[in-house]
Amino acid sequence: MTEQLAEYQDFHALDEFAAAADSRWTPAARDFIGLGAGRGLGILANESALQSWALRTRVLRDVSSIDTSTHVLGAQLAMPVLLGPSALHVLSTAEGEAATARAAARTGTVLVLSASTSRSIEDVAAAGARMWFQLYWGRDRERVTQLIRMAEEHGCTALCVTVDMSVPGVLGSRMAVALRGLGDARPLYVLPRDTQLDSGEWDHDSRLTWRDLEWMRATTTLPIVLKGIMTAEDARLAAEHGVDALVVSNHGGRALDTPRATIDALPEVVDAVAGTSTEVYVDGGFRTGTDIAVALALGARAVLIGRPVLWGLATGGEGGLVALLSLLRGQLTSVMGMVGAASVAEIDRARVCRTGAGDGSRHDSAGM
Amino acid sequence: MTEQLAEYQDFHALDEFAAAADSRWTPAARDFIGLGAGRGLGILANESALQSWALRTRVLRDVSSIDTSTHVLGAQLAMPVLLGPSALHVLSTAEGEAATARAAARTGTVLVLSASTSRSIEDVAAAGARMWFQLYWGRDRERVTQLIRMAEEHGCTALCVTVDMSVPGVLGSRMAVALRGLGDARPLYVLPRDTQLDSGEWDHDSRLTWRDLEWMRATTTLPIVLKGIMTAEDARLAAEHGVDALVVSNHGGRALDTPRATIDALPEVVDAVAGTSTEVYVDGGFRTGTDIAVALALGARAVLIGRPVLWGLATGGEGGLVALLSLLRGQLTSVMGMVGAASVAEIDRARVCRTGAGDGSRHDSAGM
Amino acid sequence: MTEQLAEYQDFHALDEFAAAADSRWTPAARDFIGLGAGRGLGILANESALQSWALRTRVLRDVSSIDTSTHVLGAQLAMPVLLGPSALHVLSTAEGEAATARAAARTGTVLVLSASTSRSIEDVAAAGARMWFQLYWGRDRERVTQLIRMAEEHGCTALCVTVDMSVPGVLGSRMAVALRGLGDARPLYVLPRDTQLDSGEWDHDSRLTWRDLEWMRATTTLPIVLKGIMTAEDARLAAEHGVDALVVSNHGGRALDTPRATIDALPEVVDAVAGTSTEVYVDGGFRTGTDIAVALALGARAVLIGRPVLWGLATGGEGGLVALLSLLRGQLTSVMGMVGAASVAEIDRARVCRTGAGDGSRHDSAGM
Amino acid sequence: MTEQLAEYQDFHALDEFAAAADSRWTPAARDFIGLGAGRGLGILANESALQSWALRTRVLRDVSSIDTSTHVLGAQLAMPVLLGPSALHVLSTAEGEAATARAAARTGTVLVLSASTSRSIEDVAAAGARMWFQLYWGRDRERVTQLIRMAEEHGCTALCVTVDMSVPGVLGSRMAVALRGLGDARPLYVLPRDTQLDSGEWDHDSRLTWRDLEWMRATTTLPIVLKGIMTAEDARLAAEHGVDALVVSNHGGRALDTPRATIDALPEVVDAVAGTSTEVYVDGGFRTGTDIAVALALGARAVLIGRPVLWGLATGGEGGLVALLSLLRGQLTSVMGMVGAASVAEIDRARVCRTGAGDGSRHDSAGM
Ligand SMILES: Cc1cc2nc3c(=O)[nH]c(=O)nc-3n(C[C@H](O)[C@H](O)[C@H](O)COP(=O)(O)O)c2cc1C
Ligand SMILES: Cc1cc2nc3c(=O)[nH]c(=O)nc-3n(C[C@H](O)[C@H](O)[C@H](O)COP(=O)(O)O)c2cc1C
Ligand SMILES: Cc1cc2nc3c(=O)[nH]c(=O)nc-3n(C[C@H](O)[C@H](O)[C@H](O)COP(=O)(O)O)c2cc1C
Ligand SMILES: Cc1cc2nc3c(=O)[nH]c(=O)nc-3n(C[C@H](O)[C@H](O)[C@H](O)COP(=O)(O)O)c2cc1C
Repeated sequence: MTEQLAEYQDFHALDEFAAAADSRWTPAARDFIGLGAGRGLGILANESALQSWALRTRVLRDVSSIDTSTHVLGAQLAMPVLLGPSALHVLSTAEGEAATARAAARTGTVLVLSASTSRSIEDVAAAGARMWFQLYWGRDRERVTQLIRMAEEHGCTALCVTVDMSVPGVLGSRMAVALRGLGDARPLYVLPRDTQLDSGEWDHDSRLTWRDLEWMRATTTLPIVLKGIMTAEDARLAAEHGVDALVVSNHGGRALDTPRATIDALPEVVDAVAGTSTEVYVDGGFRTGTDIAVALALGARAVLIGRPVLWGLATGGEGGLVALLSLLRGQLTSVMGMVGAASVAEIDRARVCRTGAGDGSRHDSAGM
Repeated sequence: MTEQLAEYQDFHALDEFAAAADSRWTPAARDFIGLGAGRGLGILANESALQSWALRTRVLRDVSSIDTSTHVLGAQLAMPVLLGPSALHVLSTAEGEAATARAAARTGTVLVLSASTSRSIEDVAAAGARMWFQLYWGRDRERVTQLIRMAEEHGCTALCVTVDMSVPGVLGSRMAVALRGLGDARPLYVLPRDTQLDSGEWDHDSRLTWRDLEWMRATTTLPIVLKGIMTAEDARLAAEHGVDALVVSNHGGRALDTPRATIDALPEVVDAVAGTSTEVYVDGGFRTGTDIAVALALGARAVLIGRPVLWGLATGGEGGLVALLSLLRGQLTSVMGMVGAASVAEIDRARVCRTGAGDGSRHDSAGM
Repeated sequence: MTEQLAEYQDFHALDEFAAAADSRWTPAARDFIGLGAGRGLGILANESALQSWALRTRVLRDVSSIDTSTHVLGAQLAMPVLLGPSALHVLSTAEGEAATARAAARTGTVLVLSASTSRSIEDVAAAGARMWFQLYWGRDRERVTQLIRMAEEHGCTALCVTVDMSVPGVLGSRMAVALRGLGDARPLYVLPRDTQLDSGEWDHDSRLTWRDLEWMRATTTLPIVLKGIMTAEDARLAAEHGVDALVVSNHGGRALDTPRATIDALPEVVDAVAGTSTEVYVDGGFRTGTDIAVALALGARAVLIGRPVLWGLATGGEGGLVALLSLLRGQLTSVMGMVGAASVAEIDRARVCRTGAGDGSRHDSAGM
Repeated sequence: MTEQLAEYQDFHALDEFAAAADSRWTPAARDFIGLGAGRGLGILANESALQSWALRTRVLRDVSSIDTSTHVLGAQLAMPVLLGPSALHVLSTAEGEAATARAAARTGTVLVLSASTSRSIEDVAAAGARMWFQLYWGRDRERVTQLIRMAEEHGCTALCVTVDMSVPGVLGSRMAVALRGLGDARPLYVLPRDTQLDSGEWDHDSRLTWRDLEWMRATTTLPIVLKGIMTAEDARLAAEHGVDALVVSNHGGRALDTPRATIDALPEVVDAVAGTSTEVYVDGGFRTGTDIAVALALGARAVLIGRPVLWGLATGGEGGLVALLSLLRGQLTSVMGMVGAASVAEIDRARVCRTGAGDGSRHDSAGM
């Protein structure tokens, strides 16, 4: 353990955590976590689209004190990075989501607890982290109500409703093998039920429409975050239905074979809700401080990270995740200094341009 | 056989069928089927152009019942996928086109029987599938008339006239070797003739013009489908000459060394016949549910698959092809759920955008 | 020899000739011929720019008789391909330029005899081919006059003045080695002189301007072809100075480290001399019938081939070159059939579009 | 020594110097010098962006006498290339910056002496080269004043203030290892101080703003060059604050993980100060005569080279660097001849276009 600490404390890139995690996971866990839907093109799309943006550095601005903090649904985060919901943290560390929650608490961010958590919400809540509850909205409306109540009772400060999995995703060949290989790692469903759902069983209500969201809006006073919005049209509908925040997300490339890159979809979503109180976050492929800065410049209030959380956990449990988040925050701090932004609010559209864009006089519209 | 079934029933991507087929074909058959004209750039063009399109997912739409069926020339298909014409199915399965026809019948689609079929039309018709007859229009007008009558008599519901091979294609080096290696696999020409054409003999009438098409239009009441249209100009001419449907096709990259990708040509063809009753289909490189959805979004009524039919047959005969088609339909169903389209008619232009397009507010014109 | 014939008669792509030639040349000859200036990026640029164009095929046009012939400076060629000037054909075949000339005569095209020929002009002229003489314009004006007279006397029908080497090119590292390795292969200068120039000696008059061209225009009645024009500005100057034809050329990537691709420069040159009698040809990377068709569609009257001539010669001397030219003509014939052009004049701008261009209604301007 | 001379005198590309240097450095030195921030994407960006520009060659212009000289801050340089500031030349040659200065003197260019020099300014000045002093502006204002005085006293003709490192850069994993491996190679700080800074200690004043620059402007009569300007906004501010020259630079990709390519930023900076007396230079990835010509065409007055200086030194000390600079000058001369520019002033915007740009009639705006 001490040795491991020694190792990852010295990591300088999230890639090093990824490599360490890969060497610790079983092949099935590695593929289940690392792969995407179909041929995995969505993962590549997310990452390569980020590289089509470059930062416009600014000089001779006072950056002696850089503040990476931001507010998300009114709560202050130490940095504009949330721990996105992902299933089965026990695959990565024995303590599962409890370790994740402690890391969230230590680094001043929020854990979005997955509906497919491998630890009970009580155990996770005990860590004292700020927590949102991510909901897969199943066919049983009563159970949905129970889940919402449960989230409220355990102090969750928002409901994150994942809407991009209304039907099963396109399963790739290696992912199919991985799923079989996971053995008896099963999501510990957060509510007692007569029969435990097993991980192969699909429980998403594919009949849902914005009407049903109105029902949910009336059911709880918790802020509602819709995860998986990729178009201006849906963003507008969300704002009209009183949704508090959106996550521009393609589920880390796990739902659709060839989804659009999330950073490509971000600007239209941001524009669509401009002037409303709906906040916009984004996830998918955020791996460096630069990536985060690009998202903020294009109008996101924060990013969520998915797989990196699991890399941190697999590398060193709670400590590994804390180290990963510190590294990311350090990178963001450096990047903010370079673009001359002492606060995240200063990271505006003029801080980025498309790579290859040769004309700064049109920088405010060039890439859009 | 039972073992093989076990294997391909578990495939999750058409690539797996392709790999299985490759391992069963002779090298000559593998190259004859897999390669294209010249350096094979047309094959790459078709596939990579498809990847320049991304889907725009929509959420909170009722997709509890997704209907993949469509109508093609007035007939209902279980999904918008036809089995495109290809020569010599005996290279892939001993029963040849009879197996293909049974798979078409079982999956509710249409078989377009190639003029270079390796089984007689009687044998194929016996399977009871809906069938179109694909015609290579040779120099002997009387024989053409006989072929049309034959198609009519065996219940074919359309004539598919392939017009993109008026001259021999540009032969690549490996393809030349493959052709020699095919040995005595020869198309069984569907009409008795004095001397059997051998596969090296070219019989396409390169004098043909739209005038001749008028003759054909007058000769039969069967709907006429022109296969191999790649421009707005020809699409307009086709509509003016009463052609019932067009297949935007570059013959799977087998005719021209470096043809335009079919998905790139599709929009101009669709626009050219807008407002007429001429239907538009497309083929070339369609391998996933996403690919099909992109074609529909850009205005195609259906896609044809060429090589995948042979992959299915080579992998497991009729059963292999049924499995492949089921997989494709499953993928399309998933994709439709993700883009919030409960029926194929709902897959409209707003469901796609160019990869890298960063501005949703212009999504309806951005990619065009 | 008979065996070699057997081999190359069966080639289906110029690449096969290239590979055969590579295996016969000494390493020094292979590099001297195959490489370009600097890092060789000009060679890549020429070839990859050609791949950014696609053909727009047309159907149901009478292509039963396809005529690949064209006129160049009033003379008929069997196909729109000239044998471009290149040094030292003895490196490729013992008979040198005499073999090349015989192949030109047999295939109905023109040989542009290089100023650095390795056979005397008398020997080459004996083959009875149509011939242009390519001139490197050295510092000694008297010698230039003698060269022009010599060309006139040996029946050359045009002077091809190469203007893109007014200063020595940027030498790459491997090319420098190759040049040393060529040993005593030296251009046999076509005029007797007191001291033989050796191949390392540079004799290009870098003081030349359009004024000097006026002198040359007055000195001879032979048509003047300027080789190495890459801009609209120079094309306009050339037309104003009574130049009969231009070759858009970057010297096969041998002059400048990173020149513009010739196919990218072609349209501006064509536009600049539109309405004048100045003809435009292009060279650099033309390897297939499609490549030639693209050049014609973008306004070139013909293409020149450089290295392929040497591939043909190295593979089988005169016979190898004849086979290569026949293959190329066959490919062009096939391509013309596919785009529905029975004559080269019909290969107009509407026959091509940029790869990836999704809108045919704008095809006439899209790529420009 | 004689043997080494023999070798590098024959080099034909800077790559050969790079390879020779790599084989002589320790692994730590090689990585410290060769790598960039984060994943090194900035290095790739600089080099690949340069390749998106092509030269437009011109012919029949008198290029018999090509003058590569230019003026920079009123002083004449033999060519538009300065030796950019870089730390610790002793890692490359035992004599360190003294060797560099002698090479600068011999080749008629300027050495920008790094604040992290490994030789004292007295030793370096002894070589008699023209010299600018590069300043990292630390927290101790008095020390900054002393450094300026020192530069003035040792005959430096400009102050080069590097402003793109106000905060520590994003450290990549391999770079972190390299830094540890450098052992006791430490910048010899140019002023006596109580305690020597060690190379790990960061001394950049991150509070600085344009206000402070006003102070510096008033403190010295030396011309002030700001290094690290990447936007039109900052360029305008610099001109307003009386800055004499700007270096468009991303610190050779060593500051930010994914900076914009400098050649992409150059045009907006040039436009922003057009009409003022502020000069613009650029650095990052300039490796050939073509690269330099592109920069000049896009409005830079000169380029700085960073790593190539160290390649030259490591290959052969002073002599190696002289050879490298001669090679570069030879390449530039050749390129100027090819684009028909007898002087650097003639290398205007019309000499370049984007690769792939097919329309010369719009060349003056196409790439912008
Ligand atoms: C192994 C794994 C499990 C996931 N489980 C969930 C989940 O239960 N609920 C959910 O909304 N998203 C889930 N996601 C998606 C993530 O919340 C997030 O959208 C995605 O991972 C972000 O992309 P990134 O991994 O590239 O950072 C999961 C992702 C992974 C990798
Ligand atoms: C082996 C083979 C044989 C073919 N034979 C014919 C044929 O006889 N008639 C025809 O119109 N098209 C023929 N085609 C073309 C297909 O109908 C279709 O246009 C093409 O294969 C579609 O591309 P895909 O293979 O990428 O799906 C053939 C294609 C292949 C691969
Ligand atoms: C080995 C070699 C020698 C050449 N010698 C000459 C020459 O003497 N005169 C000339 O104008 N061009 C010369 N060229 C350039 C060719 O005429 C032509 O522009 C170029 O090769 C065309 O490109 P390609 O080789 O890609 O077809 C030479 C090219 C090669 C490869
Ligand atoms: C090893 C190394 C040390 C450097 N040290 C300094 C420095 O002390 N001060 C400075 O302003 N720039 C420094 N630079 C940046 C260079 O001045 C220059 O901006 C950069 O190297 C240009 O890119 P190039 O190396 O691709 O030519 C350094 C660069 C390298 C490679």
